[in-house]
Amino acid sequence: MIQAKGFAAASATTPLAPYAFERRDPKDHDVVIDIKFCGVCHSDIHMTRDEWNFGSVYPMVPGHEIAGIVRAVGPKVKKYKVGDRVGVGCMVDSCRTCVNCDQELENYCIPGSTLTYSSPERDGSGSTQGGYSDVIVTNEDFVLRIPDELPLDKAAPLLCAGITTYSPLRHWKAGPGKTVGVLGLGGLGHMAVKIAVAMGANVTVISHSDKKREDAKAFGAHQFLNTNSPEALTENALRFDLIINTVSSADLDLNPILGLLKLDGTIVNVGAPDKPLSLNVFSLLLMRRNFAGSVIGSIKETQEMLHFCAEHKITPEIEVIAPAQVNHAYERVLKSDVRYRFVLDMAKL
Amino acid sequence: MIQAKGFAAASATTPLAPYAFERRDPKDHDVVIDIKFCGVCHSDIHMTRDEWNFGSVYPMVPGHEIAGIVRAVGPKVKKYKVGDRVGVGCMVDSCRTCVNCDQELENYCIPGSTLTYSSPERDGSGSTQGGYSDVIVTNEDFVLRIPDELPLDKAAPLLCAGITTYSPLRHWKAGPGKTVGVLGLGGLGHMAVKIAVAMGANVTVISHSDKKREDAKAFGAHQFLNTNSPEALTENALRFDLIINTVSSADLDLNPILGLLKLDGTIVNVGAPDKPLSLNVFSLLLMRRNFAGSVIGSIKETQEMLHFCAEHKITPEIEVIAPAQVNHAYERVLKSDVRYRFVLDMAKL
Repeated sequence: MIQAKGFAAASATTPLAPYAFERRDPKDHDVVIDIKFCGVCHSDIHMTRDEWNFGSVYPMVPGHEIAGIVRAVGPKVKKYKVGDRVGVGCMVDSCRTCVNCDQELENYCIPGSTLTYSSPERDGSGSTQGGYSDVIVTNEDFVLRIPDELPLDKAAPLLCAGITTYSPLRHWKAGPGKTVGVLGLGGLGHMAVKIAVAMGANVTVISHSDKKREDAKAFGAHQFLNTNSPEALTENALRFDLIINTVSSADLDLNPILGLLKLDGTIVNVGAPDKPLSLNVFSLLLMRRNFAGSVIGSIKETQEMLHFCAEHKITPEIEVIAPAQVNHAYERVLKSDVRYRFVLDMAKL
Repeated sequence: MIQAKGFAAASATTPLAPYAFERRDPKDHDVVIDIKFCGVCHSDIHMTRDEWNFGSVYPMVPGHEIAGIVRAVGPKVKKYKVGDRVGVGCMVDSCRTCVNCDQELENYCIPGSTLTYSSPERDGSGSTQGGYSDVIVTNEDFVLRIPDELPLDKAAPLLCAGITTYSPLRHWKAGPGKTVGVLGLGGLGHMAVKIAVAMGANVTVISHSDKKREDAKAFGAHQFLNTNSPEALTENALRFDLIINTVSSADLDLNPILGLLKLDGTIVNVGAPDKPLSLNVFSLLLMRRNFAGSVIGSIKETQEMLHFCAEHKITPEIEVIAPAQVNHAYERVLKSDVRYRFVLDMAKL
């Protein structure tokens, strides 16, 4: 076994604390990765505290925005070699046989993909443990190559925040001639803006306050829309082909936002509120609008996204911290006091 | 002016009663139609009683499933001549200049199409009056040709129930290889089944009881799914490309229905509940599902639908009644005690 150390939650109600554990020895197709950086995602907080009632498994080492260097490979690994710059995102395996896996859409694996942490290993060997740690062992099919142009610390958040926004932008065809709104300018939202701009879309940040107006502009957004201004809502009615909703609060009233969509426009939720949303169906009917959801992205798309970000020089705004600061970081994430992603530096473990 | 008689509501709380009124003399492009039959749509009840808070105008002559014979035409009418078999559906005009009208999608007219009744005429000459009457005067661009193969009484409900289901079935590409569910087997639902079957889709009626199992089969449905059976919901999970939701009750719990959709599947509401729906966004996220709305169909699509129904010998199941029975018919519609559409016979006015 491989000795690992990191930070884990012992229960839904305790803070993260230093934790020593073991990783499996590499199997034929496994890659052993020295984790250099791991992003802190809002969903790590939901999972750590079991707020989604997914039946979190403890002790839990969270983290699914992992960037590192290959330490060793299993005997049959073809894709990677020692020293390669690699990443691991939100999933580490899938059934590989269902109709969605057959289409290389492992993120929609029907029995469910194996999540990077707090998820049962498919061979029954226990629960997965995530990236708030110094080493991970992952099947090569779920390892991503990080292009040399991307620094590892900034690459880490691309593995979740990047792909979660890139995938729906691609799927719903953001690009030249398309008007795209990004609702919420946080970890996901700021990536959505940078990526949609690079895709050639006309991009508007939609927010409930003016606090992030300057940041939106700095990230390349062409317009800024304050939802507390009835005039702005009226002026922008029927203007958007696509709105990416990165706000996962169930308290958000989506109904005025729906009015911003043009005929056949789509609003895509990439965040998952913990309560049902209240939806005025008339708003959907009137302009044949769509309300959709999207979950991360496939491995193939994630690799494509990393190359896209390297080519377009897109990286997240990050604040690098020591792993011991993670509990404080959680509190700041909950107060939206981060611009725009915390990244744990495993050299400081 | 042209003398007209029919049935009207004097207020939101009074029953329909005999009513004499006037129609405009035909303008250049107007067609004067002797109404032979008019369907009774559930939305007539909502509008008569102002349950949608649309600001219904009284006295109100409801009715937007109109079939009749051309009595006279204005001097510049090109499309129709005296004696032609014609119909009028849910709208009688639109702005004709907005981006959606430009694409021949008048049903999504941005300033709003002129509805067949209780809607302000665009020339300021008052409010439109509908088809529970013996004559109507309509601009030729909003008049449909009824193919000879379709009897007028059975053609009437196609103008709303037919097009409302045909349009989303076409837009979301129902056809061979597609699995289509129809939620609710009423006036709209039974048309959706017949049309989807004719389009070549594999069709399942989804209902909360077994009462209509035999009817579903008679209309050509390939399967029947009782939503009160947890086993049936499990067996049919992830099976549908498209579900047409014809149930407009806000009490319907859509969340178990969402689980029936496969990856990228869409549920389309064609009914408008009078309260917001509660939606579990996780169900949308997990399989990149879509929740959409659709409103009737364009004039071009409606004409296409009439030819499609003539070609495929598709007609609604109707119960022809005298106009004087309309209040009783309303009560029966509210109890779902109609198989499947009441049609008023204007010869009995």
